[in-house]
Amino acid sequence: MERHELVIVGGSAGGVQAAICAQKHHGLKDIMVIRVEEKAMVPCGIPYIYGTLGAVEKNILPTGLLGEAKLKVGEVVSIDRKAKTVSLKNGEVIGYEKLILATGSNPLQPRIEGIDKKNVWFAWKNTDYLVDLARAIDKIGDIVVIGGGFIGLEFADECRKKGHKVTIIEILEHCLQQVCSTDLCIRAEETLKENGVTVITTNGVTSINGAGKAESVTLQNGDKIKCDMVIVGIGVVPNVKLAKDAGLEIGPTGSIKVDEFQRTADANIFAVGDCAEKYSFFNGSPVPIRLAAVATREAKIAAANLYQAQWRNIGTIGVFSTVVGNTAIGMAGLTDTKARELGYDIITSEAQAPSKHPGTMPEAHPMKVKLVFDRRSGKILGGCACCAQTVGEVVNIIAAAIVNEMTMEQVAMFPMGTHPWLTASPLVYQITDAASNAIHKVKDLARA
Amino acid sequence: MERHELVIVGGSAGGVQAAICAQKHHGLKDIMVIRVEEKAMVPCGIPYIYGTLGAVEKNILPTGLLGEAKLKVGEVVSIDRKAKTVSLKNGEVIGYEKLILATGSNPLQPRIEGIDKKNVWFAWKNTDYLVDLARAIDKIGDIVVIGGGFIGLEFADECRKKGHKVTIIEILEHCLQQVCSTDLCIRAEETLKENGVTVITTNGVTSINGAGKAESVTLQNGDKIKCDMVIVGIGVVPNVKLAKDAGLEIGPTGSIKVDEFQRTADANIFAVGDCAEKYSFFNGSPVPIRLAAVATREAKIAAANLYQAQWRNIGTIGVFSTVVGNTAIGMAGLTDTKARELGYDIITSEAQAPSKHPGTMPEAHPMKVKLVFDRRSGKILGGCACCAQTVGEVVNIIAAAIVNEMTMEQVAMFPMGTHPWLTASPLVYQITDAASNAIHKVKDLARA
Repeated sequence: MERHELVIVGGSAGGVQAAICAQKHHGLKDIMVIRVEEKAMVPCGIPYIYGTLGAVEKNILPTGLLGEAKLKVGEVVSIDRKAKTVSLKNGEVIGYEKLILATGSNPLQPRIEGIDKKNVWFAWKNTDYLVDLARAIDKIGDIVVIGGGFIGLEFADECRKKGHKVTIIEILEHCLQQVCSTDLCIRAEETLKENGVTVITTNGVTSINGAGKAESVTLQNGDKIKCDMVIVGIGVVPNVKLAKDAGLEIGPTGSIKVDEFQRTADANIFAVGDCAEKYSFFNGSPVPIRLAAVATREAKIAAANLYQAQWRNIGTIGVFSTVVGNTAIGMAGLTDTKARELGYDIITSEAQAPSKHPGTMPEAHPMKVKLVFDRRSGKILGGCACCAQTVGEVVNIIAAAIVNEMTMEQVAMFPMGTHPWLTASPLVYQITDAASNAIHKVKDLARA
Repeated sequence: MERHELVIVGGSAGGVQAAICAQKHHGLKDIMVIRVEEKAMVPCGIPYIYGTLGAVEKNILPTGLLGEAKLKVGEVVSIDRKAKTVSLKNGEVIGYEKLILATGSNPLQPRIEGIDKKNVWFAWKNTDYLVDLARAIDKIGDIVVIGGGFIGLEFADECRKKGHKVTIIEILEHCLQQVCSTDLCIRAEETLKENGVTVITTNGVTSINGAGKAESVTLQNGDKIKCDMVIVGIGVVPNVKLAKDAGLEIGPTGSIKVDEFQRTADANIFAVGDCAEKYSFFNGSPVPIRLAAVATREAKIAAANLYQAQWRNIGTIGVFSTVVGNTAIGMAGLTDTKARELGYDIITSEAQAPSKHPGTMPEAHPMKVKLVFDRRSGKILGGCACCAQTVGEVVNIIAAAIVNEMTMEQVAMFPMGTHPWLTASPLVYQITDAASNAIHKVKDLARA
């Protein structure tokens, strides 16, 4: 039986990053990554296969990233913690010294009548499945997307780019409601509508109808929407069967319980990514934030801690961004709603200015930043930005402010650099201006 | 005689920001901004007038920014600190309770034979002067730009966009050498050359020749370059005459001496922007970093501290960005050279990855980040980025890491968000990867 210094189960973002970092950090030569497919998808790129990229082959995670780690294609079906081995579906048994579980998540399948019809699709990450989905999309006309989160919106936007008639159905009051402040949700919805997507909110799907295949969906209010295909993107379920069967503890969000060093209760087994429990940066509570960027961060931490606890996970803050049409939206940390739910007395503030300066520069667009502060400590809790193409990095600046627990004053005095082509004017730079506005709001409230 | 609660001398970025923030911070209604012109230029936009914007009128600082502050057009020629008044060239005398000096800087005029010829131009900020320059550029063919700093490069790039034959002459080994690491300097030079600009380095101008007007320049090596116009962009001299005449102390870089609250020795007089002394974030030494973004930050601090010391200037780190052709370059904090000069034992590292992910996304370009760390403390000292359009905000993330004194480990574990259209892949996100590489470099050095 072969035995490796490190075995990693799962070869998407988390697994691959763990393999990279175990090599960098410990000079490990003997690493085996086991995943179900030879080729893995770039997870965040999946919706873009259908419009922007044009082919599944354009969205493959480069295998070169694995370096000297060996790739094994197969499905791990059990872990023997005593013998320190994993068993594959084909009967093979592979030993490990250290084991990292990066088993990811599976699409959540809602209990709706007709959900098992063959033209009801999910955001599975398997290459073959996605090739079939691409072919299916090419053949048909009208698409219903169930779920108005990031994945749903991105699928909808890509499909409409290909000329399909697309309807999004979201059960909450707004698309993106779980992660964005309301005005940004509305902004995203408006952009979709301007681009010809039908957006239905506060309305769920009660059944998927049709003889054999989906031909329409029925909504809670009784409306019926005809379609040639349904795409479901309503969230994910951590893939924890392997860990559970091996007796590892499962946490409150249904993920593998880990400590702040990404260790399970078994000193030789770590868990990272969608399958691993995450804890809020703000109050340490378990949080269901499942993103590739979070997975890669946990993978780095697990790799560093393989032999000794070295890197501590300070907790998950949640940093997202997305693009709908030409509208880019980003968010870091807590929304105003979430912050209030956690018991904070908050101050929110915003600032808007052209994305380039002067505002007469070509392709200057209005860009807005909203920030959320804790009134008591003055510390920043979250922020969001729209709609320039820089918002992905702008929310990363906000993320840096959050992890460093910067106060309103510190953010207001933040020594940013500016340039006509690349940023807003220093006079009205949105992040610092929003912080200034928060300070003055506090003063005004104190005076009133 | 009129007397105002706050008088601000200078109405460019620093002065206008001081007026905005004094209103926000203290609710001040009685503010007078005195500047020499009705309309002020957006300082960083000046080079863009000639190619991208196409007209001086497109680069005007919106007067609406002043809010309720009154604008007075005139030139302040003296300050009477005892009487708390300023005198204007036209004889008017205006009283102040608090005074903010935001008198800016003037272009440095090198002592070169022929520098006073009429078709030798400088980056003055006066609207009329710049209108004349625009007209002059329209009429001529070949342009020599003396100075390969940001201003020189931006002027050169804009002029070549208009079809002029442009030659840049830089006395140092590389353009941008004072602010960028060598590879980025070379990258900028190559981009200019690809776009048809002639770049001459390690060579100064010894004379500007011609009968009455400049017709050629002679270089240190004896070469002669024909031209129809010379533009000089070799730096600025702080405009401190007013302060000096009033007996205020001038610091080692020739700027008005201020404390960490932007106060001069006179409790009622503050100084901000190019005219005010700046101190290094790293060691407190005076530093000649003169940028609009620094000016606006100092203006916020001065405004907050008008009546009580409230906001402390933590020092200047220097954050720049620029664009040459399609090559965007940014820099925050210390270069490797500067860090060594300050006595740091440094670790440098870099990471490169496509600016979008997967790398097959449209308009994905290779983007590189280089970081400089202090080996002893592990703290980040600086970093630079090129060449995606997001580098302006990417160096702001590096700036956030610097002011929060983040260590290699903290930067490596930075919880960034990522998105296919907006950032690099989380697996190879440049800032965190460069920090990881620095850690492994330290380990390798320790092993060796």
